[in-house]
Amino acid sequence: METTVSNKQVILRDYVKGFPKESDLMIVIASDTVELKVKPGSGAVLVKNLYLSCDPYMGILMREPSPSTLALMDSFVPGKPIAGTGVSKVIDSDDLAFAKGDFVWGMVDWEEYSTVNPAGVFKIDVNINVPLSNYTGILGMTGLTAYAGFFEICSPKKGETVFVSAASGAVGQLVGQFAKLMGCYVVGSAGSKQKADLLLNKLGFDDAFNYKEEPDLDSALKRCFPKGIDIYFENVGGEMLDAVLLNMKTYGRISVCGMISQYFLETRDRLQNLPDIIFKRIKMEGFACYDFMDKFPKFLEFVLPYIKEGKLIYVEDIVEGLENGPRALVGLFNGQNIGKQVIQVARE
Amino acid sequence: METTVSNKQVILRDYVKGFPKESDLMIVIASDTVELKVKPGSGAVLVKNLYLSCDPYMGILMREPSPSTLALMDSFVPGKPIAGTGVSKVIDSDDLAFAKGDFVWGMVDWEEYSTVNPAGVFKIDVNINVPLSNYTGILGMTGLTAYAGFFEICSPKKGETVFVSAASGAVGQLVGQFAKLMGCYVVGSAGSKQKADLLLNKLGFDDAFNYKEEPDLDSALKRCFPKGIDIYFENVGGEMLDAVLLNMKTYGRISVCGMISQYFLETRDRLQNLPDIIFKRIKMEGFACYDFMDKFPKFLEFVLPYIKEGKLIYVEDIVEGLENGPRALVGLFNGQNIGKQVIQVARE
Repeated sequence: METTVSNKQVILRDYVKGFPKESDLMIVIASDTVELKVKPGSGAVLVKNLYLSCDPYMGILMREPSPSTLALMDSFVPGKPIAGTGVSKVIDSDDLAFAKGDFVWGMVDWEEYSTVNPAGVFKIDVNINVPLSNYTGILGMTGLTAYAGFFEICSPKKGETVFVSAASGAVGQLVGQFAKLMGCYVVGSAGSKQKADLLLNKLGFDDAFNYKEEPDLDSALKRCFPKGIDIYFENVGGEMLDAVLLNMKTYGRISVCGMISQYFLETRDRLQNLPDIIFKRIKMEGFACYDFMDKFPKFLEFVLPYIKEGKLIYVEDIVEGLENGPRALVGLFNGQNIGKQVIQVARE
Repeated sequence: METTVSNKQVILRDYVKGFPKESDLMIVIASDTVELKVKPGSGAVLVKNLYLSCDPYMGILMREPSPSTLALMDSFVPGKPIAGTGVSKVIDSDDLAFAKGDFVWGMVDWEEYSTVNPAGVFKIDVNINVPLSNYTGILGMTGLTAYAGFFEICSPKKGETVFVSAASGAVGQLVGQFAKLMGCYVVGSAGSKQKADLLLNKLGFDDAFNYKEEPDLDSALKRCFPKGIDIYFENVGGEMLDAVLLNMKTYGRISVCGMISQYFLETRDRLQNLPDIIFKRIKMEGFACYDFMDKFPKFLEFVLPYIKEGKLIYVEDIVEGLENGPRALVGLFNGQNIGKQVIQVARE
């Protein structure tokens, strides 16, 4: 039986300027092979990575860090593997909390095998009957993001109107479904007819539109929300935010999860409607899921019964092979994905 | 003894486009004279206006209303007097709550004599030994604005860093003093050396700068806040807000009271740093003082002892004569005023 294996990795070539490209990343075989045993006394946990999560914030971490982005997270390091959340199988462990054969999720480098920090991974309960890939999404940080951003930041009430941009994405599809479960009226925008159809026909949104086909976003929002928007779950920024501000109701709340349309622009969209924040006494609040880790048990308590009853569904876009990771990640910034973008690195 | 008098008024000529000008307002003598007695049974309260408040929001109300501005307040009506808060003396009253000779403050039209809605004015306690003009400012809506916007929206803590723009203005000077009373480190910006000196030498700010003399606002803020800003009290918007976002700390709070630099621009300033709201999990919240009327007693309880002890001072810029009202009000939008702009319509 082999005791060492090679380790394929996805490396950041150099800090990205402008829009991330596939060529900003490269696939390498690490010069060090991986020994499939951990040293006794090391406290280490060695895992084989099965699924990797592609998330918009990773595009920010591909860029040169600034004091602003460092407030969120350290950038990736040129010449080193990029990282994100993933689902992995324990190959060997010197930590009592993990045993060979356990499945875990947490932060891992983009590679086939990782030695992980035991404090940074969570054991997966295999009695919960969901695909393992779900721990990159609905049952992982993505789910917590949707939960905290909607419930904690927006304090939704039954009957309120909710708009979600990038609504078929990893987070958006959950926010829309959470809002429906709360008895809200929910509209989503997405970047293709296929995605808008998904929102309407599969995810239970009350209405949806393809923003690329709307000559005027303000008109689209007025059509969907003749009486205005109580809650906006912000994933995109720029001209969509500007149009939303015009259509917010008094005391509206904006949960700022992302501004993916703006991150890579040298000159960002001009907003004409920021004074609406005063006129309508709008609260706009940025958040990051890791500030809400203490809410994780409460989140699971909320979400698991709905998953078991089939009342929450989750659309994933799974690409097979670590070598296809760069294309999948960069595709996220162009809206190529339909649902949560996941990379399957290995079968168990 | 005369029983009717003429009534000078300040009339909005037509909805203002672009920047308000003195010529957008005109002084007229109302065609109806004012009878100095109210009709028994009418429930009316007739007042003689002594002081009128000039406030930035009045510039918004001079423009054609939009669904956005209507969420704040109705616009002024072309051909009719403009309105705002004022201090008045009761001439005659058919309301039991008010007697001839009482002093009141509340909403009045810009004119010499007004018949006011008794529900919209508050009796002034003359035992509180402050100038009557203060009820347009520190003891009126302006004071409540500073109080609610700082304490209710920003939840300040001792030792936090606070930045106030338009800091020598009606609201800003109070926010800065409130912040010092809370044990915060406070810096203000203003539009002249004289105003910056006022902040430093009279109002007790820890530091101050004249934004017009700063080649780069980001550098100015970095100089004043090497470790960043916890709380920004926003009065101006535009490029100042953009620079502030770069200098906010994680979990920073922005109380959005006004964006006076932006209201009258056809093309508003482009902001490059809105994604900092996410990176730093910033809360940005618009507010209007009238949403906090229930806090008025608590506000007085807080502010009156400090006024009595001389620990809060209030700088007013009083212009005499209603006929000088248009110049004073328009001057506000150019930063002509030093401190709270008030018009003295009459001596008692």
